Amino acid sequence: MTSPPSEIPGFYGVIPAGGSGTRLWPLSRRASPKFLQDLTGSGHSLLQATVQRLTPLCDDRLLVVTGARHVEAVRQSLPDLGTDSVLVEPSPRDSMPAIGLAAAVLERRDPDAVLGSFAADHVIGDTSVFRDCVTQAVAMAREGALVTLGITPTYPATGYGYVEVGETYAVTGAPDAHRVVRFVEKPAVDVARSYVADGHHLWNAGIFVVRAGTLLELLAQWHPELVAGLRRIADDPAAMDEVWDDLPRIAIDHAVAEPAAAQGRVAVVPARFPWDDVGDFASLASVLEESTTHPGLRVLGAQELVLSRDSTGVVAAHGGRTVVTLGVPDVVVIDTPDVILVTTRERVQDVKGIVEMLQHGGREDLT
Amino acid sequence: MTSPPSEIPGFYGVIPAGGSGTRLWPLSRRASPKFLQDLTGSGHSLLQATVQRLTPLCDDRLLVVTGARHVEAVRQSLPDLGTDSVLVEPSPRDSMPAIGLAAAVLERRDPDAVLGSFAADHVIGDTSVFRDCVTQAVAMAREGALVTLGITPTYPATGYGYVEVGETYAVTGAPDAHRVVRFVEKPAVDVARSYVADGHHLWNAGIFVVRAGTLLELLAQWHPELVAGLRRIADDPAAMDEVWDDLPRIAIDHAVAEPAAAQGRVAVVPARFPWDDVGDFASLASVLEESTTHPGLRVLGAQELVLSRDSTGVVAAHGGRTVVTLGVPDVVVIDTPDVILVTTRERVQDVKGIVEMLQHGGREDLT
Repeated sequence: MTSPPSEIPGFYGVIPAGGSGTRLWPLSRRASPKFLQDLTGSGHSLLQATVQRLTPLCDDRLLVVTGARHVEAVRQSLPDLGTDSVLVEPSPRDSMPAIGLAAAVLERRDPDAVLGSFAADHVIGDTSVFRDCVTQAVAMAREGALVTLGITPTYPATGYGYVEVGETYAVTGAPDAHRVVRFVEKPAVDVARSYVADGHHLWNAGIFVVRAGTLLELLAQWHPELVAGLRRIADDPAAMDEVWDDLPRIAIDHAVAEPAAAQGRVAVVPARFPWDDVGDFASLASVLEESTTHPGLRVLGAQELVLSRDSTGVVAAHGGRTVVTLGVPDVVVIDTPDVILVTTRERVQDVKGIVEMLQHGGREDLT
Repeated sequence: MTSPPSEIPGFYGVIPAGGSGTRLWPLSRRASPKFLQDLTGSGHSLLQATVQRLTPLCDDRLLVVTGARHVEAVRQSLPDLGTDSVLVEPSPRDSMPAIGLAAAVLERRDPDAVLGSFAADHVIGDTSVFRDCVTQAVAMAREGALVTLGITPTYPATGYGYVEVGETYAVTGAPDAHRVVRFVEKPAVDVARSYVADGHHLWNAGIFVVRAGTLLELLAQWHPELVAGLRRIADDPAAMDEVWDDLPRIAIDHAVAEPAAAQGRVAVVPARFPWDDVGDFASLASVLEESTTHPGLRVLGAQELVLSRDSTGVVAAHGGRTVVTLGVPDVVVIDTPDVILVTTRERVQDVKGIVEMLQHGGREDLT
């Protein structure tokens, strides 16, 4: 049987499904985090959409890495996923152990495996451009590079890290790949402005494409004990409980990407597809279509439950109730069965503070 | 048995309990109108508070006039009310038939009865000042006048009618009573400003104190057929269904107060008690105390359900859900089990338009 034309031979999709999406509270909760939610009105959760996006590229060569508390919900929402396609973290250990474990598992299955790690809760448009970018990244990864897909910044965001883009690589099959000079953590706004202006910086969207072996080899330079632990679990899944909790909590950016960039081992392929991490309600509004009946308003959930006059912004009608907005510009109304949030576009970042206040005030039940 | 000191001999309290309070939607509904709601957080409905306010003045000499659809709820909320103390209108006919019917019924019970008509859905403070004003109005009414209590305007309201105040009457027991020169309908804002400035105008709060016989005698000058119909019903309650629906729909202001003022038959006693008709959510906010935990916010309903940061305005938590407001100034959030309304203080008058839209759009179920 030949592969469908879009499939990338030897490519494995890895989907870390974690993170609570605190700034999307009360839509997103600890028990039903962002990746399990349909935040685009597509009828599919962000996790399901991520799987649908990757399946044409990797067929059933998929690994979802998720926490113990969500594994049941993940399996229910992805009934076609094989037993071997879900890795369960006993506790959250940030992105490096999660992706590293996938690499260790894939390395045993296929010594030449190239993995692409894509967050379960981002929105990506234009499938064919996405496929082309991933295909280039895989070609570059086969050369031994750690490859990231960098997003062209559309505004001076201070909430994302940036990638400084260097010279072009001359690699067959990856004409758009460039060297990464360095990673920059979330910058101040004036720095962010200069990045947007200079054309040499891309957003770091946390997408990495790399040979499983390369990733572990790079990681072993700085965290050999972590690689040893991951390989031990891959070798004997029963060792998970013993090993996992002693692994360091560390992000892939700090653990590997930044030091590897300093060694000239990191490449970036500019992502020409629409991308959104749906990090807050302003971001959510931008991935929703404008209501046909209520100009200026984006509605998530049951359109027929929303009645609006002279209002703009975003309304989520997830509580089964009629939601009426009258004369409120840039409003954010999130109705859920037990909590309703009313705020403005300007304050969407501060939703996180509300969740922290609830958690510290003995109202974890609402978070 | 002697009367308690506050009781006013021969005084009868009349409470027209009607009106839907459309601008307080979705708190107020057709099936559970404003007067049946606790809008002050006192634990009592506005109707119950009105009865409690009048009972010391008139003991059990009370008449509640209400529509057929609300009579059951009225009786349930006022279990101590005698059977004879509720008059049921088969259909709404505005204030003149309602108060006129009470007058016709009371005239038969006590030819010297003085009635005071007080809307079931207003908020009045300072009981002892209230009692003094009513006592003066009764003394003036015993002289044959139609007496209104006029509210000192606190701002140039365009939503109320005004009373132009003339010379003082020299009546024993009513030192503050003045002649009413005329009634003025809701004025334009510049006219309202001049009224507030000149000190000769008071708001017409629709409170009337008058001998039952005087009211019917005055009314008979301009609407003799209405008086005949009302007396026929008072004489034989079984005639209600036959007579009522043919009575004209007319307000007491137009039917009697305005023409009687032209004859010099109307007096006004300035009301020195706090008064609010709770006509919209801005008005509602003004009768609620500021939250101790959330400065600038007024909360109706369960205080513990409201969580607010950097927000002012009014929140009604009647839906059993937690309501969170974040960074929204002058907001109005009304949460009920089936509808949530989000608007601003500036737009509270336009809530009425939303209700009309729902009624014309086939969503009477929500109104």
